[in-house]
Amino acid sequence: MQDAGKTRLRVEIFGQQYTVVGKEPAAFLHMVAGHVDDTMRQIAAANPRLDVTRLAILAALNIAGEYFKLKETYERLLAQERAPVASVPRE
Amino acid sequence: MQDAGKTRLRVEIFGQQYTVVGKEPAAFLHMVAGHVDDTMRQIAAANPRLDVTRLAILAALNIAGEYFKLKETYERLLAQERAPVASVPRE
Repeated sequence: MQDAGKTRLRVEIFGQQYTVVGKEPAAFLHMVAGHVDDTMRQIAAANPRLDVTRLAILAALNIAGEYFKLKETYERLLAQERAPVASVPRE
Repeated sequence: MQDAGKTRLRVEIFGQQYTVVGKEPAAFLHMVAGHVDDTMRQIAAANPRLDVTRLAILAALNIAGEYFKLKETYERLLAQERAPVASVPRE
């Protein structure tokens, strides 16, 4: 549903319904919600005794770890991009 | 603490103690935990009635959103990097 330039949609995360609101397209918000749901299910499968709050916090930690690793990779590429390709001696 | 190449440390997220284990250095794990804690506190300040589980899930959604946006930016830069700088006509 589009409302004043915002996307509002219902998603299911770990069996609970959430309303997600964002400026991004619905496909993006579905991808984001799907990733959180997948991450929580993977952690739950490996740690069946964890309660939902701890699962959600561990999922947030995992995803934040992915974010900072990607940020390092991105910043390395950016630095490389800005560095001169080769030094050309002037005549 | 280092243990068999793994870092294990206690972090506090939204007033709760968690043990975080990872191959990454302690500074990286502290940065990750700090980002989850900050994100939860920002969401809680704007939505004081949310319970901790919903806060943690919303934090995970926000961080996953940041991750996918950065991924798009990174992939655009990578595609640009791989594209030929200029087409040189052959003689």
